[in-house]
Amino acid sequence: MVTRYLDLVSLARALDIIRERFGGRRPRTETVPLDEAAGRVTAGPIYARFSVPGMHISAMDGIAVRSAETHGASETRPIVLTDAVRVNTGNLVPTDYDAVVMIEDVWIGEGTWTIRKPAAPWQHVRPVGEDIGESEMILPSLHAIRPHELGALAAYGVTEVEVLAFSAGIVPTGSELVPAGTRPGPGQAVESNSLMAAAHLRSLGVAARRYPVVPDEPDQIRAAIERGIRENDLLIVSAGSSAGTRDFTASLIAERGEVLVHGVGIKPAKPVIIGEIEGKPVIGLPGYPLAAYTVLREIVTPLVGQYGFPVPEPETVDATLTTTLHSDIGTDEFVLLSVGRIGERWVAVPQSRGAGVQMSAVRANALMTIPSSKEGAEAGETITARLLVPQRQAGEGVLITGSHDPCLDRLADLVRPAGVDIHSTHVGSMGGLGADGEYNLPYLRKYLPDEDLVLLCVAEREQGLISREKVSFDDLPVLRYANRQKGSGTRILFDRILGETGIDPSGIQGYEREFTTHLGVALAVRSGEADCGMGVYSAAKALDLVFTPVATERYELVMHADALDDPRVAAVADAVSSETFKKTLQEMGGYRTAETGVRRRLP
Amino acid sequence: MVTRYLDLVSLARALDIIRERFGGRRPRTETVPLDEAAGRVTAGPIYARFSVPGMHISAMDGIAVRSAETHGASETRPIVLTDAVRVNTGNLVPTDYDAVVMIEDVWIGEGTWTIRKPAAPWQHVRPVGEDIGESEMILPSLHAIRPHELGALAAYGVTEVEVLAFSAGIVPTGSELVPAGTRPGPGQAVESNSLMAAAHLRSLGVAARRYPVVPDEPDQIRAAIERGIRENDLLIVSAGSSAGTRDFTASLIAERGEVLVHGVGIKPAKPVIIGEIEGKPVIGLPGYPLAAYTVLREIVTPLVGQYGFPVPEPETVDATLTTTLHSDIGTDEFVLLSVGRIGERWVAVPQSRGAGVQMSAVRANALMTIPSSKEGAEAGETITARLLVPQRQAGEGVLITGSHDPCLDRLADLVRPAGVDIHSTHVGSMGGLGADGEYNLPYLRKYLPDEDLVLLCVAEREQGLISREKVSFDDLPVLRYANRQKGSGTRILFDRILGETGIDPSGIQGYEREFTTHLGVALAVRSGEADCGMGVYSAAKALDLVFTPVATERYELVMHADALDDPRVAAVADAVSSETFKKTLQEMGGYRTAETGVRRRLP
Repeated sequence: MVTRYLDLVSLARALDIIRERFGGRRPRTETVPLDEAAGRVTAGPIYARFSVPGMHISAMDGIAVRSAETHGASETRPIVLTDAVRVNTGNLVPTDYDAVVMIEDVWIGEGTWTIRKPAAPWQHVRPVGEDIGESEMILPSLHAIRPHELGALAAYGVTEVEVLAFSAGIVPTGSELVPAGTRPGPGQAVESNSLMAAAHLRSLGVAARRYPVVPDEPDQIRAAIERGIRENDLLIVSAGSSAGTRDFTASLIAERGEVLVHGVGIKPAKPVIIGEIEGKPVIGLPGYPLAAYTVLREIVTPLVGQYGFPVPEPETVDATLTTTLHSDIGTDEFVLLSVGRIGERWVAVPQSRGAGVQMSAVRANALMTIPSSKEGAEAGETITARLLVPQRQAGEGVLITGSHDPCLDRLADLVRPAGVDIHSTHVGSMGGLGADGEYNLPYLRKYLPDEDLVLLCVAEREQGLISREKVSFDDLPVLRYANRQKGSGTRILFDRILGETGIDPSGIQGYEREFTTHLGVALAVRSGEADCGMGVYSAAKALDLVFTPVATERYELVMHADALDDPRVAAVADAVSSETFKKTLQEMGGYRTAETGVRRRLP
Repeated sequence: MVTRYLDLVSLARALDIIRERFGGRRPRTETVPLDEAAGRVTAGPIYARFSVPGMHISAMDGIAVRSAETHGASETRPIVLTDAVRVNTGNLVPTDYDAVVMIEDVWIGEGTWTIRKPAAPWQHVRPVGEDIGESEMILPSLHAIRPHELGALAAYGVTEVEVLAFSAGIVPTGSELVPAGTRPGPGQAVESNSLMAAAHLRSLGVAARRYPVVPDEPDQIRAAIERGIRENDLLIVSAGSSAGTRDFTASLIAERGEVLVHGVGIKPAKPVIIGEIEGKPVIGLPGYPLAAYTVLREIVTPLVGQYGFPVPEPETVDATLTTTLHSDIGTDEFVLLSVGRIGERWVAVPQSRGAGVQMSAVRANALMTIPSSKEGAEAGETITARLLVPQRQAGEGVLITGSHDPCLDRLADLVRPAGVDIHSTHVGSMGGLGADGEYNLPYLRKYLPDEDLVLLCVAEREQGLISREKVSFDDLPVLRYANRQKGSGTRILFDRILGETGIDPSGIQGYEREFTTHLGVALAVRSGEADCGMGVYSAAKALDLVFTPVATERYELVMHADALDDPRVAAVADAVSSETFKKTLQEMGGYRTAETGVRRRLP
């Protein structure tokens, strides 16, 4: 087994290389009609084809007059004009006239016009070229055209514009890939990175084209690279970028051009390739979706910026980190976050850092960098969170942390019309605000002894044994059990029942194996890896398993009493109390709703 | 002549009416493939079709082992396993195994595997459902899909999504309108508002369709409204929304539905209509492009937001206003601004407030509101500027204010590749930083007595008489003259020459008429309104007029000495000194470049 290693460079160095090699390059240009020009970037300056207005026009409905003939007019000494021309807004003011009197100020007779105020020269006249003069520059080069500028361009005689054009080809490689819509078998994965890459590039103004999946055969990948380079300005080869025996991307790029970088000291995403073929950049994307996402964001985006495309600068907020994170020296690590605003303060809860947990990026609304010079970040530290959604949306977030229950996702869906974004992170119920069951209350008081806390009952939910066939607690010693992690409400409940019934945990097969969600337990049971586990009814129902009720517990949200003054929290509380939510709970099954919406102060 | 007046409501009231009437409405939905789903808004929650991973898989290249068999392994006491399975990253970990040892840590023999470290249970194994469990919610309702989420959706078995669908029809009306590309005759204008409205709506995620121009004939407008309502979810009728005799929009909406609002107390944009036909909103847009832009931004955008579309919240900065603005009580006035950053401080220079000056919106990168309760805003006051470009772009702006010269536009174009945005506002050279000619220097010292100022010579430019036929100063008393405004460099030069040659200004026909740009003067000459005027060569050349040189002057930029430390200002200074710029000046004509790029301290 030959193991090859990458020759890592730092992210900063990789970006320097991109700048040195591709900086200031200009892509092709193309001419598009105005109707398709919004958001495109001008390739050169655009000049007015004619002046606007093209002549002196009236700015009002009224009469065109010679201002000199109106001198001295007043309420007591009206002047009767015998030479004036009726004009509406936009009409030409004839050459011999130099002012317009509003129609409201004119007493019209038979061929006479009486006025009671003098007209200043050029009043209510829009002079030729007031808006723009023929040949004046409307827009400079490299300007991202805004919607309202299309109107101006049309008004100044422009009908089409020359804009930057840049196309990217995306070649997914990998014999293990199956097309979207196919359930992957063992060792297979859905080809999804090309979709993400295409959408990401399009959001930057790049025309992206996805090619069919190529198996891990050098000849076929070589042909796909040939075609991709011929047909595009930028080529992205998805996966095969590592240094394993089936990773051909780097050597094939080197064959036809140059590998500038192979391996960057970032996490996730070390195995990235930056190359060049025939003057065109080629990027080798790592296969893990979160790594691919990182490369698109941190490397491909600035690369596209080198070609003159405006690259969005993410908004940032300073946030208090809730959890200590450890990281490797020498690697810039990107950690996905859920951030939320509590009053004027932002807090940041890290998402799972597993390289394969793509949901982390779905759940995240921000990210932070642990720089290569640091070993981590401490809980309580102020960090800079780069937002992945508009700041307003991040500010609408309600963070719920603690034990997970599927009904929280339904609650999150229910409050979306009110503009509230629920972000829940699953850390076991002792970690945070979401508490389930009375047995948690002493912990809350211990950790937050002086706080005025309110408990909001989401539901009384049934916990029970989840199994393929009907089982009872008495069967536990002969079954393989799927346990929940320490600190979770379900685990505390399970251990309590073990204690009450006198069953010895060490006699339970699988007791040491910890799952972090109800569904994880149910999936272990369905896959046959375990015979039973404890969890909520909804998890059993979702996977067609048998559910044997064991206990009912209050699933409650805990919050500061004054948090209810926050409209976002109030919206969540309202949603919990709504009939719609109760109906949802009843449909999901496994909940009792008599206590749903009931609030009580923590004793 | 009947003049009808609008029954104005405040903007706040108009928005309340929109909320009351259209709040919480849901548009149609449509199903789109993932490749077209980026940026679309989910119509309902989206659930995972299967678990990912679908089974336990290896997170590393290595061997699958039973962890119990590895207990006690160490460097000094290696353990030789005889039962293990070679797995690559992503491969299934067979049921009987519960851990993976990395290949680097394995010494492979003939049917044996030697390890020197124990394996913890489930190490390097990605358990079934680690990423997501079957039936878990991936995204809630009303979520704007981000590019990287497409990859996740595909990976979880989703191939198409149900998203909000909302279509808008835009009917331009007006007998005076000519299509884009046509030079408008007297009283005509290019139909451009429908382009702007369509692009604006598309930027919000609305499918916009433009209909052909309808003349001001009630029957034809009625038919167009019928069709527009039938074919769309929102109808926008462009113009005809005022209260004049040719303004039919309001009465035609009333005929088929209800006019909720006719006239809103905002400037520019009073004559706006908000109506409803068959449950669908109808907006009557005022004809002036800046007024239409205001209605799209302030009224149509929040209306679309009522239907569940995320509307971008503009970024704001606190900025120091440079100029006092007067405004009417009872009207919310929107003033377009050029904002720029000087160190940590933002300054805001108002653009022209003329309702017909569409270039103001092209030049602006921000806007402010003077609320209806205030009579204006004072120079030096801190105002809230709503940005119309990303904040980074606004921060890259260099504000140049003073006398206008066409070469400034070329300079602006030249610095775009460096990412610098030059915003020039034309206020006459005494108003600001751009100075032209020695005769300005005493003013600078007077207004800025203690500052360390640097002058950067852009060019020595020729000022001369612009005329249709060759003229000289001696002809002035018999010619109609087009003058520049008081305070402009050209005006000061002209008056000085008049003084030197003993010509009496009161004898010059047109002396009192002031134009604010060189091109304005040239256009007046070309249109025959004046016989000559004074200005720069480039203005004469652009309009094919005769240019008679009269004097050469230094066209200089003045700045604080330390401003050159700012990379943006340095980029502008570099561009001024570049050979490219000198060549541009020579091609434009009318400039001498020997002094171009020369810097001197203000004495």
